[in-house]
Amino acid sequence: MSDIVLHNYFRSSTSHRVRIALEMKGVGYHYIPHHLRHGEHLEAAYLAVNPQGLVPALIWSDGMLLTQSLAIIEFLDETIPEPPLLPKDPPSRARVRMLAQMIACDIHPVNNLRVLASLRTLFGAGDQDVANWFRHWVNEGFGPLEKLLTASPETGTFCHGEAAGLADICLAAQVTSNARFGVDMTPYPTIARINAACVALPAFQKAAPQNQIDAE
Amino acid sequence: MSDIVLHNYFRSSTSHRVRIALEMKGVGYHYIPHHLRHGEHLEAAYLAVNPQGLVPALIWSDGMLLTQSLAIIEFLDETIPEPPLLPKDPPSRARVRMLAQMIACDIHPVNNLRVLASLRTLFGAGDQDVANWFRHWVNEGFGPLEKLLTASPETGTFCHGEAAGLADICLAAQVTSNARFGVDMTPYPTIARINAACVALPAFQKAAPQNQIDAE
Repeated sequence: MSDIVLHNYFRSSTSHRVRIALEMKGVGYHYIPHHLRHGEHLEAAYLAVNPQGLVPALIWSDGMLLTQSLAIIEFLDETIPEPPLLPKDPPSRARVRMLAQMIACDIHPVNNLRVLASLRTLFGAGDQDVANWFRHWVNEGFGPLEKLLTASPETGTFCHGEAAGLADICLAAQVTSNARFGVDMTPYPTIARINAACVALPAFQKAAPQNQIDAE
Repeated sequence: MSDIVLHNYFRSSTSHRVRIALEMKGVGYHYIPHHLRHGEHLEAAYLAVNPQGLVPALIWSDGMLLTQSLAIIEFLDETIPEPPLLPKDPPSRARVRMLAQMIACDIHPVNNLRVLASLRTLFGAGDQDVANWFRHWVNEGFGPLEKLLTASPETGTFCHGEAAGLADICLAAQVTSNARFGVDMTPYPTIARINAACVALPAFQKAAPQNQIDAE
């Protein structure tokens, strides 16, 4: 078995992204679950590993700590070239990173568990308020994402051409999260089509939340 | 004059990052201000350029639209190699991207203008609530960032060694934003020291919010 360790939570969208990339690259790893709702990520033993107390955190074979899902995925792509998760030429790489970051910087961070929990504790938000907040930021991001994907001849079966990559990983993980909050995907046929192509792939299936050891 | 265009707002932290990178790389550009508080970024003419209606958006010399500050900065680094904004070896690149994304994915998105405005309209948050929210997420991120920077022998005058790069750009732009919300920097001596080294550099000075044509 590999000596690579992934600190992880089945439902975390950023953990999900890293699992997909590891599966695509064929990297075996120990899966260590941290139940975010039970606060297991804030225990001293884990904070000693990752001071940020967030998942995912990857411990590479040499013991190096890596956090931040996009940084981890770019590291995997630079050290294990096949299959590539980014195109070769700078304009295409920029396009894929832009599409990925539209999700990873503008949608997910505003909607993750700790932010939703803060809305409840600081502002007394209820379940409906939280669901509306989640859907609002998804729609703010998915509207322009759909437009950019639909308008570009560079969009293929996947976000960029005919192979899944970094942007598709972020897209599929976000669409999975959306389902828990009842996001209507009708306005986003291109995103839905790309997601369907992603989830048909074995790597995406193995990495799916419901297929992890800590799934509920 | 260059035919590169940067759609921009002097006070936007993500715009600030891209301006620093452009100055470091010596790229001239037309500065087109969009006053976010007046909603100028949501006008039809700008939405036709950038469907996301956010700044920054870079129009490259060939007309290509690029958004997302980290994607833009990596593009600049791949097309204009000197001075490098990322190290050469994958583990170091991963470390710099991780440090950058701890700010760009975990602090800034939760604290940007549109999120703060939503706290006011949806939950009736007042000035003090908004300032507390801002400071909370900065402290959540800067605590572990300070620990990681202080613990690593790879930290030098800057986040990674003796030259400013991607992580320093994010760090300096965040520290600038912090000042508007009265974040106490006392617990973060390493971050403060790195920021001081950054703002002593001409590129960081030229890119500073107060030195832009739309500064108030």
